[in-house]
Amino acid sequence: MEFLVNITLRWSDDMDPELKERIIVDERAHAAELAQKGHLVRMWRVPGRFENWGVWRARDATELHEILSGMPAFPWMVRVDVHPLARHAVDPAPYPA
Amino acid sequence: MEFLVNITLRWSDDMDPELKERIIVDERAHAAELAQKGHLVRMWRVPGRFENWGVWRARDATELHEILSGMPAFPWMVRVDVHPLARHAVDPAPYPA
Amino acid sequence: MEFLVNITLRWSDDMDPELKERIIVDERAHAAELAQKGHLVRMWRVPGRFENWGVWRARDATELHEILSGMPAFPWMVRVDVHPLARHAVDPAPYPA
Amino acid sequence: MEFLVNITLRWSDDMDPELKERIIVDERAHAAELAQKGHLVRMWRVPGRFENWGVWRARDATELHEILSGMPAFPWMVRVDVHPLARHAVDPAPYPA
Amino acid sequence: MEFLVNITLRWSDDMDPELKERIIVDERAHAAELAQKGHLVRMWRVPGRFENWGVWRARDATELHEILSGMPAFPWMVRVDVHPLARHAVDPAPYPA
Amino acid sequence: MEFLVNITLRWSDDMDPELKERIIVDERAHAAELAQKGHLVRMWRVPGRFENWGVWRARDATELHEILSGMPAFPWMVRVDVHPLARHAVDPAPYPA
Amino acid sequence: MEFLVNITLRWSDDMDPELKERIIVDERAHAAELAQKGHLVRMWRVPGRFENWGVWRARDATELHEILSGMPAFPWMVRVDVHPLARHAVDPAPYPA
Amino acid sequence: MEFLVNITLRWSDDMDPELKERIIVDERAHAAELAQKGHLVRMWRVPGRFENWGVWRARDATELHEILSGMPAFPWMVRVDVHPLARHAVDPAPYPA
Amino acid sequence: MEFLVNITLRWSDDMDPELKERIIVDERAHAAELAQKGHLVRMWRVPGRFENWGVWRARDATELHEILSGMPAFPWMVRVDVHPLARHAVDPAPYPA
Amino acid sequence: MEFLVNITLRWSDDMDPELKERIIVDERAHAAELAQKGHLVRMWRVPGRFENWGVWRARDATELHEILSGMPAFPWMVRVDVHPLARHAVDPAPYPA
Repeated sequence: MEFLVNITLRWSDDMDPELKERIIVDERAHAAELAQKGHLVRMWRVPGRFENWGVWRARDATELHEILSGMPAFPWMVRVDVHPLARHAVDPAPYPA
Repeated sequence: MEFLVNITLRWSDDMDPELKERIIVDERAHAAELAQKGHLVRMWRVPGRFENWGVWRARDATELHEILSGMPAFPWMVRVDVHPLARHAVDPAPYPA
Repeated sequence: MEFLVNITLRWSDDMDPELKERIIVDERAHAAELAQKGHLVRMWRVPGRFENWGVWRARDATELHEILSGMPAFPWMVRVDVHPLARHAVDPAPYPA
Repeated sequence: MEFLVNITLRWSDDMDPELKERIIVDERAHAAELAQKGHLVRMWRVPGRFENWGVWRARDATELHEILSGMPAFPWMVRVDVHPLARHAVDPAPYPA
Repeated sequence: MEFLVNITLRWSDDMDPELKERIIVDERAHAAELAQKGHLVRMWRVPGRFENWGVWRARDATELHEILSGMPAFPWMVRVDVHPLARHAVDPAPYPA
Repeated sequence: MEFLVNITLRWSDDMDPELKERIIVDERAHAAELAQKGHLVRMWRVPGRFENWGVWRARDATELHEILSGMPAFPWMVRVDVHPLARHAVDPAPYPA
Repeated sequence: MEFLVNITLRWSDDMDPELKERIIVDERAHAAELAQKGHLVRMWRVPGRFENWGVWRARDATELHEILSGMPAFPWMVRVDVHPLARHAVDPAPYPA
Repeated sequence: MEFLVNITLRWSDDMDPELKERIIVDERAHAAELAQKGHLVRMWRVPGRFENWGVWRARDATELHEILSGMPAFPWMVRVDVHPLARHAVDPAPYPA
Repeated sequence: MEFLVNITLRWSDDMDPELKERIIVDERAHAAELAQKGHLVRMWRVPGRFENWGVWRARDATELHEILSGMPAFPWMVRVDVHPLARHAVDPAPYPA
Repeated sequence: MEFLVNITLRWSDDMDPELKERIIVDERAHAAELAQKGHLVRMWRVPGRFENWGVWRARDATELHEILSGMPAFPWMVRVDVHPLARHAVDPAPYPA
């Protein structure tokens, strides 16, 4: 099942720059892994914001929660909106969605 | 450039059932054509609603407007929200986005 | 997977009273069937409104959409909000959720 | 009487990790007790958030307030929305609601 | 248990003036009866609107729904918001609330 | 004139427990006094929140502001919504409102 | 006591042009009378809309409701928001407010 | 041109009481000056809040911004909403607006 | 003075196609005239909607209202939001704004 | 392609005045450069707020994000809303938009 997820991040005030750098590096590696496993399908940045829209694939909401809460940047995700998606007859997905 | 578009439809009250049927058939054919041209990238139904989320590709907002307003069901799209999307470093797009 | 669904209904203006009566009877029978199949888990009325909150079970959002759109009163559901639910460690569900 | 309750939590900034751990352990034990007494009927996690939806049973809003304000994590519940629920004719509750 | 209820009314377009007059008369008589039974505790008009705020008393949300849906003007109540109320330590109620 | 007032409170972070205790005690005594003077007519707690709904009586908005801003807990009232109330023909007030 | 009132109007669909003209004429005459009696203190048009902001004076919300509901255009006031106003120490009112 | 302006203030946490006192005194003197110059036409307090509604006069939005940002309390104005006002035919302004 | 204006249009149901065509032609001619007079500075279409964003120039809100309400399509402007604009130090306007 | 962008800024609490001064100077120089390159088309201040509306030009949302996130004041932009703009038939743009 696919989910459309809108995530807003915000670093803590006075966050240690090294920690921030490490989180960013870890996050990228983690995302690449999730993409390879087929969980992260697409991701875009919202222009002008520290926010993204992503298409995610998981067995159900429980697995999606495990995936999102397992990300290195999860503690800084100040707002997460999950939209459950149903198959649409005209969807040109290049894989069995 | 890609756009995330959220479209809500509502048929007119007392709409002729034949017209409705024809619009649905035309819309599907038109969507298939847009998918083939690379304009319609993905489309999902919002569960329980006559509403969809779609990923669209167009040169700019002007071309996107032409594409959307050229759809057979356009007169019944009562709400259209367009979110411009920027490239994200971790996007696993299977094509040059 | 379970979903929390909030549904608002509104009959059409000048609706034929017989049709309305028939829809109500059919809806009740249909709901009883969905309960027996395990799709409709719980349902409550919002006091003072023609609106309900329900706990539904379906394989995914696609099946949920089929269930909801197959109900006799679906054409009069003017607003449907679907909240995907993840397992919580303290949930006292009397069955394997 | 049953209530649908939506609770959002947020730990204090710079919260002592031991205190946090203790609250989590106490909260789970407390929730199990409330479930046994029939006050906590169901509970789900909102995917991607530190937020839950719960079905609660109490004599009235006064008792519900006592139950919620008596929970170990109550000081960190930054938003609590209570929806009073009325019986619905098609509710398949496995117990007298 | 007491409830704070905010009700907005709107007559149908082209409503028969006689029917409207009859509903108003019936509503007043019905409200007086509900007040006598202790269900309607207080009622105020929102200035400039066809809307009221009321304090209602009922065993639970199920009884409140029966009371509200039994009112002559119920079909014209286009919006009803119910706020469940808990006892407050400083409430100067002139009766056992 | 009567007013419906919705007040949300929030203690300061790291507030001195003794100060908090003193404010609570003073607030209760002050509220009892306002009730005796006929300014505080009714007060309820919003279940699960540090928030109340109250019916207040004052000559006008200026006097209401003096009453509210004179309360010991006023500096911690983070949100105050005032709804002016007009007499309703069916109000069963047990006193001349 | 003064009130800040925001009124939005909308004529009925297919309204008789003569009726509309008469309402406009009556409304102006009525407003002039209310101004002379000191009830209507100021009135402005919201640019681009059939909406106004006004400063009104009345003994209380009950009298304000009588004034507003007695206006010829009242049946076409689709939204009325009333803000109760308290005296401000720096108000340069040219009369005893 | 006149503007309706809604201003919400909030003192900084742990603000020096002397600074606060000085700002209040300066603000009053400054407001009196603006009233004399014809820029501040009316001002009211929102009951129960540290917020005001004011009628202001300025050549255009640029001058209004200079006036507002020149006030001693400007750094504590956490929300400012400006509504541009057009002349209304029935406005009983006691001066050429 | 410049204003940012957001206008949403909606044709009447069952509107005469000839009338609609005439309004569109008149509107374009009228807009060209307003551009020439310096009142209409810029205009864009919101993609996927019958809605526009425009930069307008007028002496004040009263003149802006006259301009907007004098447009052929004014009766079909179902929502108009006017944002007053102040000069910004970095504005690269190619003319004296 | 043009974008309408609404930016709200907020300096950090206890920000070093010298840093603030330097950011303001850098921001102005940077904006002048963006104007010269044709990226910043127009900019206005929202009266009474530390907020602006701007018309920006960029190849797509990705380039717009690079432009906005490259500004000296970007870390203090607490809210950025981007509206994609399509060509309108009546736009009097003094250049090929």
